Amino acid sequence: MAAIRVGIIGLGNVGGGALRILADNLGLISRKLGAEMRVTMVCSRSVEDDPPEILELFPEAVRTTEWHDVAASPDVDIVAELVGGTSVARKIIDTAIAHGKSVVTANKELMASQGAEIWATAREAGVRLAMEASVAGGIPIHSVLREGIAGDRIESLLGILNGTCNFILTEMERRGDSLETVLSEAQELGYAEADPTADVDGFDARSKLALLAALAFGVHIEPGKIPTEGIRRIRDVDFLYAARLGHTVRLLAAAEQAEDGLYLSVRPALLPKDAILANVHGSYNAIWVRGAHGEDTFYYGRGAGATPTGVAVVSDLINIARELLMGGSERVSPFAHVELEQGEPADIGKQLRPYYLRFRVRDRPGIIAELAAILASAGISVDAVLQEPSDAKDDLPFVITVEPAPRRSVEEAVAKMRDLDFLVDAPLVLALEKGLEN
Amino acid sequence: MAAIRVGIIGLGNVGGGALRILADNLGLISRKLGAEMRVTMVCSRSVEDDPPEILELFPEAVRTTEWHDVAASPDVDIVAELVGGTSVARKIIDTAIAHGKSVVTANKELMASQGAEIWATAREAGVRLAMEASVAGGIPIHSVLREGIAGDRIESLLGILNGTCNFILTEMERRGDSLETVLSEAQELGYAEADPTADVDGFDARSKLALLAALAFGVHIEPGKIPTEGIRRIRDVDFLYAARLGHTVRLLAAAEQAEDGLYLSVRPALLPKDAILANVHGSYNAIWVRGAHGEDTFYYGRGAGATPTGVAVVSDLINIARELLMGGSERVSPFAHVELEQGEPADIGKQLRPYYLRFRVRDRPGIIAELAAILASAGISVDAVLQEPSDAKDDLPFVITVEPAPRRSVEEAVAKMRDLDFLVDAPLVLALEKGLEN
Repeated sequence: MAAIRVGIIGLGNVGGGALRILADNLGLISRKLGAEMRVTMVCSRSVEDDPPEILELFPEAVRTTEWHDVAASPDVDIVAELVGGTSVARKIIDTAIAHGKSVVTANKELMASQGAEIWATAREAGVRLAMEASVAGGIPIHSVLREGIAGDRIESLLGILNGTCNFILTEMERRGDSLETVLSEAQELGYAEADPTADVDGFDARSKLALLAALAFGVHIEPGKIPTEGIRRIRDVDFLYAARLGHTVRLLAAAEQAEDGLYLSVRPALLPKDAILANVHGSYNAIWVRGAHGEDTFYYGRGAGATPTGVAVVSDLINIARELLMGGSERVSPFAHVELEQGEPADIGKQLRPYYLRFRVRDRPGIIAELAAILASAGISVDAVLQEPSDAKDDLPFVITVEPAPRRSVEEAVAKMRDLDFLVDAPLVLALEKGLEN
Repeated sequence: MAAIRVGIIGLGNVGGGALRILADNLGLISRKLGAEMRVTMVCSRSVEDDPPEILELFPEAVRTTEWHDVAASPDVDIVAELVGGTSVARKIIDTAIAHGKSVVTANKELMASQGAEIWATAREAGVRLAMEASVAGGIPIHSVLREGIAGDRIESLLGILNGTCNFILTEMERRGDSLETVLSEAQELGYAEADPTADVDGFDARSKLALLAALAFGVHIEPGKIPTEGIRRIRDVDFLYAARLGHTVRLLAAAEQAEDGLYLSVRPALLPKDAILANVHGSYNAIWVRGAHGEDTFYYGRGAGATPTGVAVVSDLINIARELLMGGSERVSPFAHVELEQGEPADIGKQLRPYYLRFRVRDRPGIIAELAAILASAGISVDAVLQEPSDAKDDLPFVITVEPAPRRSVEEAVAKMRDLDFLVDAPLVLALEKGLEN
């Protein structure tokens, strides 16, 4: 094979980034491949709307608005599906596979929900599938879990996987502003979508966690089955109380292999301030991995952005090209394991954690006693009660921390509190994550 | 091929760790390989001295004290060379390659000095060579640079690559003790060798940096050509002054692609306290990588230890096994690039940095003026003068920081200071590393 021929479908943020990187690095890539990589076709929704610099970078590439032309072209060895969404993207990938082409995708949503099925089709067709860009853009976490630490048995992982949420939380912490203020600023700056649901309600992180769980534990779990909680209920006062406890608040995607199965969750939680994971600021992503033998490793980088995600796409192109040049059958599964088991997450209600309960109350005597009695009746031990001075007697925040307890006991106790007339709203429940010191 | 057969040579720390991991993870490994991995031969210096649990883990493995039996055995597909040193290790690897076996090694010294040559032999013989364990044990940095971010063009990297030095420096910082005190404790605890030269004088980090430079930039540089400075001259007072400047002191292995070539250095330097790299404590290792497109990524984990390094060895075994099962030719070079260029580091004397100069003087009037005059005559601008209160008039420490200047100018100025009669010893010169915020 003289050259590896690439077709790019989708010239948005990621597609444009990948093309810029390819143009800059083609010489370097041939030093890594021992062969040439060529972009032979490029597909976008409207050729007229393409940024003109794209035209200049690859003057010899055929340009089209019909994805089918690329996915079925005899002049393409690897198709990069960079359109996003699940319906057209799936058609593109299926068509490319049916035409014997290997596929690179950045599509977390599609791969988290239908990846195992797509991979089975690819394997049957004898083509390669890669998706490094689908989780934590610039961090090569797929490569790490598929190959770098393939020899280890993963016990748990904790990820900051949504840059928008991390930006909002770290800005709230830094400036003492409310979530609403920071979110609307982030929307103005283009860091957050006009409809921020996928980010702030945790659904984006949930898809990514499903993919990481597949890679780390060899199990396919429907993203919809992962207990998920967003950051909307976090208030500036939570950073104040967290700091009093030596902690901060982050949205964490967590997987923990326990005796009764794999605990998975996406939720805001308290992290010790001196944990490296707590020092991930702004829109950066990071993943903390604990292996049975390799102990703790940590990976950090840009979670999104045209060129960091583009690097992941181009690295996938290079790695597939290396396999195509080598010949032979599939070398390593995109999911790290030869077969994915269909799985269910373990019952998160049984997971033990110390908890932070933040209340907003109309102040009157006896409140702590009533709350403590409910906790005691659920078998939960109070660790500490924290209250910062405040004049807001009608909406007074304070915090109770409790010793490690099953999540269900805490939830049931909190459910019993709901009718208490002194509560302004439902208590906020955050787990404390421990053992992350370095 | 029904099963992949592994021969382990060397049952010390790393070999023992690899065997324990293999025993624990064989089921998992077959889920990742789609085939069985078997340890068929084990070689140690003295069968009687082997820990008995090794015998129990692999009862069917042939045990020998003759490495040649393993390296030439028809019952071995991959040889793991885990004896260390450069002479026998080289013979083992050459023999294994000559007998058509792929090789996994943890040998940084050998691979940094003779790796390009060994790899050429391996390539000619059509066998695989892998060395993930040779740098930063538990951190899969080879995998990251070979594959994970293969699509990027690396601009610079900064590593904490020697766990002993990092342990000593972080303990000095934490406890305010002298290097001598902490080093002798580390020796008693077994964290430092009786002869600590390789660690505290920077030679261990230098070999690792040569390997990382090959992986990141495709260039083979003799470790002996890398400007290298250890930590022996760091005093507890340096942490005090560094803290006054919002910094801390770490031994850094650095590579920077500049216009006039590749700057390489191993030296203690000042890092901003809020940089993630400054938050790497104890014997952990870490590597900060800056890519032209992927921007900053960061990798952290155990730098040594039986099982973290063992994970690297077992991951290499798995990845080579995947290629053997796949068939075909070599897929990816152990050095990331198809050819390594022979290179020379660029002249570090031209590298610009702000510097920290720490003096020990017999106090008298006019000292600052004399030093400032020498700096001025070398074209170096003083940024600040720091002096903590002290009664030690005969050995008074203080610090001058200077604005970015070429290293050579600073060294020449310092050389001119040597004959000044008020100096207790030669000034300590530390670069300030910037731009590491997250």
